Amino acid sequence: MPVNLPEIIPASLTPIKGIRLGWAESNIKQANRKDLLVIEICAGSTVAGVFTQNRFCAAPVSLCKKHLAAVKDADAKGTNLPGIRALVINTGNANAGTGEQGMLDAITTCEHLAEIMAIPFESILPFSTGVILEHLPMNKLLVGLPHAVANLTANNWADAATTIMTTDIAPKAYATSVDIGQHSINITGISKGAGMIHPNMATMLGYVATDATISQPLLDSITKEIADLSFNCISVDGDTSTNDSFIVIATGKSDAPAITSRNDPGFIEVFNALLETSQYLAKAIVRDGEGATKFITVTVKGALTVDEAKTIGFSIGKSPLVKTAMFASDPNLGRVLAAIGYASRECQSLADLDTTQLELYFGDVLVAEKGGRAASYHEEEGQAIMNEAEINITVQLHRGTEQGTIWTCDFSYDYVKINAEYRT
Amino acid sequence: MPVNLPEIIPASLTPIKGIRLGWAESNIKQANRKDLLVIEICAGSTVAGVFTQNRFCAAPVSLCKKHLAAVKDADAKGTNLPGIRALVINTGNANAGTGEQGMLDAITTCEHLAEIMAIPFESILPFSTGVILEHLPMNKLLVGLPHAVANLTANNWADAATTIMTTDIAPKAYATSVDIGQHSINITGISKGAGMIHPNMATMLGYVATDATISQPLLDSITKEIADLSFNCISVDGDTSTNDSFIVIATGKSDAPAITSRNDPGFIEVFNALLETSQYLAKAIVRDGEGATKFITVTVKGALTVDEAKTIGFSIGKSPLVKTAMFASDPNLGRVLAAIGYASRECQSLADLDTTQLELYFGDVLVAEKGGRAASYHEEEGQAIMNEAEINITVQLHRGTEQGTIWTCDFSYDYVKINAEYRT
Repeated sequence: MPVNLPEIIPASLTPIKGIRLGWAESNIKQANRKDLLVIEICAGSTVAGVFTQNRFCAAPVSLCKKHLAAVKDADAKGTNLPGIRALVINTGNANAGTGEQGMLDAITTCEHLAEIMAIPFESILPFSTGVILEHLPMNKLLVGLPHAVANLTANNWADAATTIMTTDIAPKAYATSVDIGQHSINITGISKGAGMIHPNMATMLGYVATDATISQPLLDSITKEIADLSFNCISVDGDTSTNDSFIVIATGKSDAPAITSRNDPGFIEVFNALLETSQYLAKAIVRDGEGATKFITVTVKGALTVDEAKTIGFSIGKSPLVKTAMFASDPNLGRVLAAIGYASRECQSLADLDTTQLELYFGDVLVAEKGGRAASYHEEEGQAIMNEAEINITVQLHRGTEQGTIWTCDFSYDYVKINAEYRT
Repeated sequence: MPVNLPEIIPASLTPIKGIRLGWAESNIKQANRKDLLVIEICAGSTVAGVFTQNRFCAAPVSLCKKHLAAVKDADAKGTNLPGIRALVINTGNANAGTGEQGMLDAITTCEHLAEIMAIPFESILPFSTGVILEHLPMNKLLVGLPHAVANLTANNWADAATTIMTTDIAPKAYATSVDIGQHSINITGISKGAGMIHPNMATMLGYVATDATISQPLLDSITKEIADLSFNCISVDGDTSTNDSFIVIATGKSDAPAITSRNDPGFIEVFNALLETSQYLAKAIVRDGEGATKFITVTVKGALTVDEAKTIGFSIGKSPLVKTAMFASDPNLGRVLAAIGYASRECQSLADLDTTQLELYFGDVLVAEKGGRAASYHEEEGQAIMNEAEINITVQLHRGTEQGTIWTCDFSYDYVKINAEYRT
């Protein structure tokens, strides 16, 4: 079961004015399960996205980028493309490693949906998640589209979260709101992902919508920043997916004044609420990580750069040796030191890391200092912390002022089982 | 059981003139097992080493580097330090993450052995392998030293291979010989390692000795080159150890003429025999990788640089998703494409990798081309190859002329089990 991930309460997922969601059961991978989602976005919204950096990115990811660029281009030229008006997401098949046919399939999906919804083809962003190297079963998917559209309602967020699941055990959703003067702004989001989780991007899929009004350039900029502080801070298995996408939608349907710069009233509140939502959804993916029994937070302080801090964090968080020790509740913390020591493989500036200067804390307990085991450390203390489901590891490097936090989970028999049996 | 790793035949491990080996049972981690090894090296030998790049490198690794430098320095100054004369290796404790006390313990070990053997302290290279963050039980180790020395004989290679094991299931050794004109040159080596295996260095411990005469500068240069083509081409779990060391010893006791440059007669034969030995020992570590059921060779061709080729090879070879699919004998080869696609995370020049140009072969079967599944590929072919214990994956990038090969194993329940229970 996921580690301390509360069940979602559908009634708590506040609808976002200007957004409707509809799902269908299209038998893409298996029968009798929701596997196709359409998200309708009202005219006048701004939409920004961050996508996987995997060179084998899926056809829908390439098409998303193209459509977002087309909309921006039209906007710059003053032509009348109406912006992004719909997202379409299928689970059960990633449409990745599918070559030209994969791109044709993604295009056909958008064309059909464009006709049903009477919107331009370029106004649609397509997403797929599931198995790689197999073609989309287009006949099934196309049959499902009108059903999903017929099903569009504003309060479908909980079903939407369920629809996009793959190996996820639990659906992931979060809602919050902030008051800006007399105006209330709502934020609701969903995500999915449990394996093939590592930046950049680290989520398979994340969608966050707000009724705030946010200008396109500002939304582009904060979407990237929020991704770096949320979905790009998690790792389940060190594998970066071919399909990762994170989308932020601002419908502008609240009464609050438009936000066009970081100095505008309300910016900081809305930014923090979007970040809170995205971090919750990112951590939810780790809590539901394949086979996870522990939720592990690694904070690295006193680094020269944020990159140094995150690289050490991920070096610890990716290590199979650290992760299997965590699974066994064995405070074999020498493995954490080893992972710190080889982080320089992926971050050149760490080549001169002075290991005699750093401190390793397990929870609040000092474990290592001066290049070795702290004289004050007793293994019983480490064991007590290790027995918990939530574990905090802190590394103080004492070489700078930057810091970073990453979230990861342990490595269990069930991770092997889930991934050995994934296609059966 | 190890994957296709032949049992060692003690009589086939040719003694190397100038080398004697002696072991002891010192109860370092457990009773009644060989855990302490001394290798005596005759005067006039040349010795070269390559060590872990982990910043948390163990105290004995630091001391090895210091002693090798001291010997070279003395040589340059013409003072009479007699070169490296002995190696001392304990298993059961890594003496890593042990701070100042760890360095004192390594020094004490060398001091005691120096006295017993009547050689200078700096002539000794110390090595440790086992659990990290715990102090060496010096009382036990020091009691064992005279026993190991009393036990020195030339034909102890098989016992030596057993003595240095940790989680290894099988001892690893190899011997070969080459004829240079009328002279025969012998090469014998041992290695150990099963987990925490990833460059650089990728072996926990490897020792290769020859009776050839090789000058110190040439031995330094080829030791690095051979490590890059053998121990630095393997990964079990992506964890780079704190203690990895690879040592090549040339005793000069054969009658063959000295080799001082790459143009000398016999150089290429001796180099190839040293490489053959080192590659065998490196691959033996993978065959005996923790929980391994498959031995996987990944060859990447048509790269711009060797670094590109090895990075893609390791990206595939480290991926938990690829490794669990291999364990399940499931030809879920989309995961291989995903791992190729995110290799650019660790090699900048791959940021412009054109995935539509590359080909993926599984055995001899073309699986993917033009960015997707090959039209000719049938899953039954992939399944047939997947059912074997030895699996070859080839990636042809079509962007350059360089290539690289790495060796890895699959990821099984037993990997988790072995590492979850390591200290119990």
